[in-house]
Amino acid sequence: MTAAEKLRIKINQQKHITVGLDTDIKKIPQHLLNEKDPILKFNEIIIENTFEFAASYKINFAFYEKEGLKGFESLKKTIELIPEDAFIIGDAKRGDIGNTSEMYAISAFEHFNCDAVTLHPYMGLDSLEPFINFKDKISFVLALTSNKGASDFEKLKLENGKYLFQEVIDTVNKWNENKNLGIVFGATNTLELEENIDRFDDLPVLLPGVGAQGGSLEDVVKTFNKNKKENYLINVSRSLIYINDGINFGNFVKNEIKNLNDRVRISLGE
Amino acid sequence: MTAAEKLRIKINQQKHITVGLDTDIKKIPQHLLNEKDPILKFNEIIIENTFEFAASYKINFAFYEKEGLKGFESLKKTIELIPEDAFIIGDAKRGDIGNTSEMYAISAFEHFNCDAVTLHPYMGLDSLEPFINFKDKISFVLALTSNKGASDFEKLKLENGKYLFQEVIDTVNKWNENKNLGIVFGATNTLELEENIDRFDDLPVLLPGVGAQGGSLEDVVKTFNKNKKENYLINVSRSLIYINDGINFGNFVKNEIKNLNDRVRISLGE
Repeated sequence: MTAAEKLRIKINQQKHITVGLDTDIKKIPQHLLNEKDPILKFNEIIIENTFEFAASYKINFAFYEKEGLKGFESLKKTIELIPEDAFIIGDAKRGDIGNTSEMYAISAFEHFNCDAVTLHPYMGLDSLEPFINFKDKISFVLALTSNKGASDFEKLKLENGKYLFQEVIDTVNKWNENKNLGIVFGATNTLELEENIDRFDDLPVLLPGVGAQGGSLEDVVKTFNKNKKENYLINVSRSLIYINDGINFGNFVKNEIKNLNDRVRISLGE
Repeated sequence: MTAAEKLRIKINQQKHITVGLDTDIKKIPQHLLNEKDPILKFNEIIIENTFEFAASYKINFAFYEKEGLKGFESLKKTIELIPEDAFIIGDAKRGDIGNTSEMYAISAFEHFNCDAVTLHPYMGLDSLEPFINFKDKISFVLALTSNKGASDFEKLKLENGKYLFQEVIDTVNKWNENKNLGIVFGATNTLELEENIDRFDDLPVLLPGVGAQGGSLEDVVKTFNKNKKENYLINVSRSLIYINDGINFGNFVKNEIKNLNDRVRISLGE
């Protein structure tokens, strides 16, 4: 099954919530610190309690790299824990010259067995091509991110009247011959989403910024629905996985993701 | 000693060659494949034969990530092999939202003990800040890269008449309060270097693109010299480390880096 097919199944089930496994040893429940690999144990409990309800998992590589070799081991074992029909996004934000990007593509898609990655557009097409050449995978290119610094370069006005991030979206569409590209678009400002949603065409959209970063889940869902688009993933990390720090935190996480799914369904008007 | 001080010492010795440890198991001499860790052994021989002559080492993380956990171990051990007065650039090309970039900064600067890193500018200031906050380290921000795709976004014309990469350089200068920022500027086109060198101000410059990618060492050195700038590093990877694949490849590498240093000195007019 290709990554796109896996994603389609989840979308057809009206699943749009992506669980961001931004696992930080400083934030996980204290009682897990006695475990041999506390990060892995935390992830295991999160996965057990969310896999029925989640559209996908987004794993930010930085949180694992920080722990060095041990972290990479936790990362690999975490991915092995995730049921096979789940859609796994390696949030690695890579981008390098061709022969080097190829190495990163091999790392994310083969070694870590991700279905998708996130990529920096700055270095252009040949920096993305080694990822695009994995036709069964999906590459989400950063367009508009959810952080304050998005205004430093992403929102610069070009000579042609477009913002840089708009040019990135239009160009990604042109490069999408294999139908395996997507974009990252911050969900912090609904007006921006509304103004740019037509550009997305049929690119899948990964939306960070809901939850701890302040974006509105309901507004995002309603905006996509109004524009007759359904191929989108709403990432929720900190506000979901750290919702409780007691012995039974898994139950709280399960209730929260069910609640998020209910909010999605209500916003879809069902 | 801060990273900037380490670099200053090398520059004062007129050392400008950066040895790119882009070590690929498919390209190293066959006889090393019997070693327990062939990549580490190769790097050890390269380092032994270059440390007297090199300004710095640039280690592209992708080449190690590709090998999974084993690769990270080779990376860590390689860095441990490099003499302490060497200037080590972790060519990781990272960039993420603030709390995540902080993890990458910890990984590169603390776990792997690099003196410098390379970073994507796309996500703006708050994605760079966690790196900038390591005041004793240097962060090289990608401005103009040496690959074909540089024309896709980096060379887009902005409304203000500048190219995107020029805006990046000017902005990096504005952000350089800690005097620990630098830029990456491809050395494939001397005219572009000449036209933009004034913008660099006192930022250290890392130049890929000489050697296998076609840029001219002599032209780069002469252009900096003519403009009375000396704070630059010329990266040479494939054309140096794979110059020979026999038992004595280390000698060939040593001769080649001495030869490169001679060419630098001649171009400086000495």
